[in-house]
Amino acid sequence: MMNDWSEERLARAALSQICEPARPGLAELVDQQGADQVFRSLLAASEDSAWGRRARSLNTADLVRAAEVLGIRLLIPSDDEWPSPLADLDNISCLGGMAGSSVALWVRGPLRLDEICVATHPPVAIVGARSSTRYGEAVAADLAGSLSHEFPVISGGAYGIDVAAHRGALAAEGRTIAVLAGGLDAWYPRGNTAVLDEIAARGLVITELAPGIRPTRAGFLARNRLIAALAGGTVVVEAALRSGALNTANWTVALGRVLAAVPGPVTSALSETPNRLIRDNEAVLVSRADDVRALLTPVGEQDELPLHGRPREFDDLDPGLLAVREALPARGDADLDDIAMASAKSVTQCQAALVRLELMGLVTRSRTGSWRLARR
Amino acid sequence: MMNDWSEERLARAALSQICEPARPGLAELVDQQGADQVFRSLLAASEDSAWGRRARSLNTADLVRAAEVLGIRLLIPSDDEWPSPLADLDNISCLGGMAGSSVALWVRGPLRLDEICVATHPPVAIVGARSSTRYGEAVAADLAGSLSHEFPVISGGAYGIDVAAHRGALAAEGRTIAVLAGGLDAWYPRGNTAVLDEIAARGLVITELAPGIRPTRAGFLARNRLIAALAGGTVVVEAALRSGALNTANWTVALGRVLAAVPGPVTSALSETPNRLIRDNEAVLVSRADDVRALLTPVGEQDELPLHGRPREFDDLDPGLLAVREALPARGDADLDDIAMASAKSVTQCQAALVRLELMGLVTRSRTGSWRLARR
Repeated sequence: MMNDWSEERLARAALSQICEPARPGLAELVDQQGADQVFRSLLAASEDSAWGRRARSLNTADLVRAAEVLGIRLLIPSDDEWPSPLADLDNISCLGGMAGSSVALWVRGPLRLDEICVATHPPVAIVGARSSTRYGEAVAADLAGSLSHEFPVISGGAYGIDVAAHRGALAAEGRTIAVLAGGLDAWYPRGNTAVLDEIAARGLVITELAPGIRPTRAGFLARNRLIAALAGGTVVVEAALRSGALNTANWTVALGRVLAAVPGPVTSALSETPNRLIRDNEAVLVSRADDVRALLTPVGEQDELPLHGRPREFDDLDPGLLAVREALPARGDADLDDIAMASAKSVTQCQAALVRLELMGLVTRSRTGSWRLARR
Repeated sequence: MMNDWSEERLARAALSQICEPARPGLAELVDQQGADQVFRSLLAASEDSAWGRRARSLNTADLVRAAEVLGIRLLIPSDDEWPSPLADLDNISCLGGMAGSSVALWVRGPLRLDEICVATHPPVAIVGARSSTRYGEAVAADLAGSLSHEFPVISGGAYGIDVAAHRGALAAEGRTIAVLAGGLDAWYPRGNTAVLDEIAARGLVITELAPGIRPTRAGFLARNRLIAALAGGTVVVEAALRSGALNTANWTVALGRVLAAVPGPVTSALSETPNRLIRDNEAVLVSRADDVRALLTPVGEQDELPLHGRPREFDDLDPGLLAVREALPARGDADLDDIAMASAKSVTQCQAALVRLELMGLVTRSRTGSWRLARR
């Protein structure tokens, strides 16, 4: 037996079978009253209550057997392995009619979920369209491969971008977690069976739904909130205007997590959601793993977002400094007002930038207080 | 004779041959002292002065002849056709060692420059890499074609994105202006001769350099400032990390004009500059002509940036309203605080959005002040 089947665990197992996930107030109610009490109330509910009918017809022994046969551990909030970031879901009242943390998590795989969810190197969600292009798949796989040793890669196990991200992480021998919208007794989609088997063998496959439950539209939406909540940030790679990835993005923003998006050609319908999120400043544009790394690294340990391409003379300058440096005349002095005007920045910003540039040896200050480029 | 060769015009013609363009202070000095006075000073300058030597060896009759033979008009600031937006260049002290308006403009083509530069429908600059891809060329040509009737398309006549933009405008029978870095007696690059001939016949080709002067690196940079200044906004389509387009972008920002950029695949080196400008909020992401149109339309006449794709149920909602609408539960009421939390917006923002949604018939308010989705 992998699991210690206490009353509380059994009752939470039962509730995860009876109740649709992400029902507003449910997880909190269970935390307050205890799962056993909530389960008993459902057993006593009227025939009008779907949950009541389901509670009375449930055989908890079947759930226990399924879990043990499949090597599934059932996590509940009092377990050490319970991922603490899910608590943030309790601070959001409602998104698309859903809210709250999970009653329980069904987990398969050798990794420990609490060790995956660490603040210094949180998981990164990589999500996007099922009907992706080679471009999006290549980017998702590359990002996942580069990040997955430091930042475990979470996705939904779906076709397209999801599975490309999982595959990228697996190929790099990194860590990856699939969060599914149905019970772990059957993989969905079946076409991803080989990958999901491998994730279960080397990473983690998790769900808040009991074995035997098949994915529903509501299940997918509820699953998206778990992806957003478990991850320190979400990267949207390719997604059409209407896409499940947009729902994950909305959860990410509501949770105050970092939302990033990979831009794509404006000629592709699959660029619409990432490009729109970037345009509206809902997501930060990321081009490569270093960009994501910088966003996920806690403030304080964080460098400026890197400039790209082969390093040349000033490529390690941040864009703000570069703009101020370029506002100086090629020869001769300029005073602070002129530099501010030429760089289209405020005098205060310029002053700060010039002092930094001076410390870097890139500009010099005259006795009269004007500035010039340092001789090189 | 197309031109009235007053002393002032002759002297400005001479100065545009003698002096490198965009020399800080030059245009202002000429405005203050008169071109004739400045020219006389140069004639009297010492042998050490390159400008003095050039002034003494100049035959102004050659310039007049070249202009008349080629059908070039020479514009000076007192002409009605002089483009007033160039005056904004006098408010920027220095960018990369360059500053100021032009002493004169040599112009070929049937359009009138003052009629091109109108505030309600200003020209749009479309610029980018010479070594562009089919993607960038297609986007530049499409944008130019769609915009060029309302917003004349300005570019630099170079290979790649520039000529794709000019061609797109010409193909759509729209208006286009090429701003060149050398005299109008010879086209540069020669490979674009057919297009430049057509622009001279149907649009405008302009430069601040006298006939006979060949493009130099400084000339290209000075030219970029004219493109930025003449346009109401600049769109960067494809550009590598180091690109002339970045210089045009910097002038655009320094001038307080709108800078836009078309994102591209992160796997292409030619996406680096547009994606970086977008990432750093220096440029607004644009995907199609409507996005550019919205940016160029003066505030007040301006709609929200359009949402893209085929219109469906809520696609005409602006993203802010959509987010608030989606924060409401699928069934039942929510109060303002909960909606604010779920939409990750402030209570004030939510209140404003809800009132707008109510007017649109999309949400309803209960007697207790809570909100719910309208029945549809």
